[in-house]
Amino acid sequence: MSGTVVLTGGVGGAKLVLGLLQVVDPVTVTAIVNTGDDFRHLGLHISPDIDTLLYTLSGKANTAQGWGREDESWAFLSALRELGGEDWFLLGDRDMALHVLRTAGLARGDTLSTITAAVARRWGVEAKILPMTDDPVATMLDSDVGELEFQRYFVALRCAPAIHAIRFAGAEQASPAPGVVDAIMTADIVLIAPSNPFLSVDPLLAIPAIHKALSDTLAPIVAVSPLVGGQAVKGPTVKLMGELGLPVDNDSIARHYAGLIDGLLIDSGDDCSVTDIAIAHTPTLMVTLEDKARVARAALALAAAID
Amino acid sequence: MSGTVVLTGGVGGAKLVLGLLQVVDPVTVTAIVNTGDDFRHLGLHISPDIDTLLYTLSGKANTAQGWGREDESWAFLSALRELGGEDWFLLGDRDMALHVLRTAGLARGDTLSTITAAVARRWGVEAKILPMTDDPVATMLDSDVGELEFQRYFVALRCAPAIHAIRFAGAEQASPAPGVVDAIMTADIVLIAPSNPFLSVDPLLAIPAIHKALSDTLAPIVAVSPLVGGQAVKGPTVKLMGELGLPVDNDSIARHYAGLIDGLLIDSGDDCSVTDIAIAHTPTLMVTLEDKARVARAALALAAAID
Repeated sequence: MSGTVVLTGGVGGAKLVLGLLQVVDPVTVTAIVNTGDDFRHLGLHISPDIDTLLYTLSGKANTAQGWGREDESWAFLSALRELGGEDWFLLGDRDMALHVLRTAGLARGDTLSTITAAVARRWGVEAKILPMTDDPVATMLDSDVGELEFQRYFVALRCAPAIHAIRFAGAEQASPAPGVVDAIMTADIVLIAPSNPFLSVDPLLAIPAIHKALSDTLAPIVAVSPLVGGQAVKGPTVKLMGELGLPVDNDSIARHYAGLIDGLLIDSGDDCSVTDIAIAHTPTLMVTLEDKARVARAALALAAAID
Repeated sequence: MSGTVVLTGGVGGAKLVLGLLQVVDPVTVTAIVNTGDDFRHLGLHISPDIDTLLYTLSGKANTAQGWGREDESWAFLSALRELGGEDWFLLGDRDMALHVLRTAGLARGDTLSTITAAVARRWGVEAKILPMTDDPVATMLDSDVGELEFQRYFVALRCAPAIHAIRFAGAEQASPAPGVVDAIMTADIVLIAPSNPFLSVDPLLAIPAIHKALSDTLAPIVAVSPLVGGQAVKGPTVKLMGELGLPVDNDSIARHYAGLIDGLLIDSGDDCSVTDIAIAHTPTLMVTLEDKARVARAALALAAAID
């Protein structure tokens, strides 16, 4: 099966995938999604990036808020607070349905893959959403306040601690989820979404069989830079690059993916002096659906030019 | 410590306990609550009778509806339905907070007792609410459609199947929760709430150490009949008595508790011809708070007369 594969984290990546669905046949698109952010909270298995893909591609995402579901309500959280429960991770009433069903499914022996596929089917999502792995992988941050789980850092501490190192516990031992390697090996084009390279894309690359498939595939691999006008749209990318001692520019992004990507799509206002990969420009800020389709089209065009 | 102990199931029993709190010092009241209805649903540990006590005594019960919380909303359930999840057991958004916290606490190694006590304290409930046991006990019904878990019968099948026999799986091996035996042994008065004797009170009596404590205690034991004007106020009591071949009258109730109770409080419109226990009358229908206080007062008076 040929098609387009996107390696993606949450919000930014979901926008690119949504754009892609406007310009190619949705059934030919496979999103391979970071699960390094997954964690257990109050006994519930939460997969933030998978959820963002599911909500975004099914039209349920709260785009104004930037995360979670549209038309969300907060009665559960308010009752939880009243009981002294942990409320740093915001669980909406409707959002809870996904977490509860996923947790119950996993307890029954279903895999994250099959649960995700069932929800996607139920919600009429035609693209494939594959977790990178059904095995546990946890993004762990070595910070100036000690070792942190990803959600602790990202949500509870609002990315305030300085990060010295990042590791992906379990990645070395993890097998790609069913379909992941096949999708990469038979793809016409592989895109790396403008998700945080260090926190959202690296977990995928840390799984040996995924890294190998990306090295082996004949498909051109094009990354979309997360930098827009030299800044990150959202999240800790810029702050993190500083803490890791990296200049905040596309040369750093290109070098980070060196040996892996054949092309890098960057914002019209930015440049990149790395010469051994193809570079293309487009306005990469994705606000409207048209923006998303434009970025997807530009990434596909860059890949086609390499091919 | 002396005081009043109430053996209780859910709704009817909670009304008596609430009445009792109007007429004696709340800190002297201990409710020992049926947990035979407890079950796992979507991975959540649900304790329906404990919840009813907690909601009722903290003023959070939805009295119009007869179960659950006041001011409840249903966004979770509607999202769950949309995902094809099991929706036969109605889980409100606020109610979910209790189930999620309890389940997480149990997974951490806390007991049902300590979790219940923490919630009661948080909500300002001064009476003690003790689960009958921290061990798993499950009320199982032998019915004309096969063996049924209690909630399956009670909620999903609306008590429609005919019941031939009832057993309490695990009761023989169960230890009373901390404080249960002590409360019974040191009580001034033990009341059996007007809960269903076969489904809600028998699980407590099936735990050997509770049965022994009730036999050994010097406190008078008074049951409040669940029949009002020869009918049950709510639930399957009358239908079940028919299926078990019992006449629907207070003689059956008195005989069911024979050897255990010293007195039976019955409705003003009813009678009882059993002569080896003390009988008292009061209007036992509990609608207003005044009704509840009246029934509690009558039960205490009957016990005091025996004493």
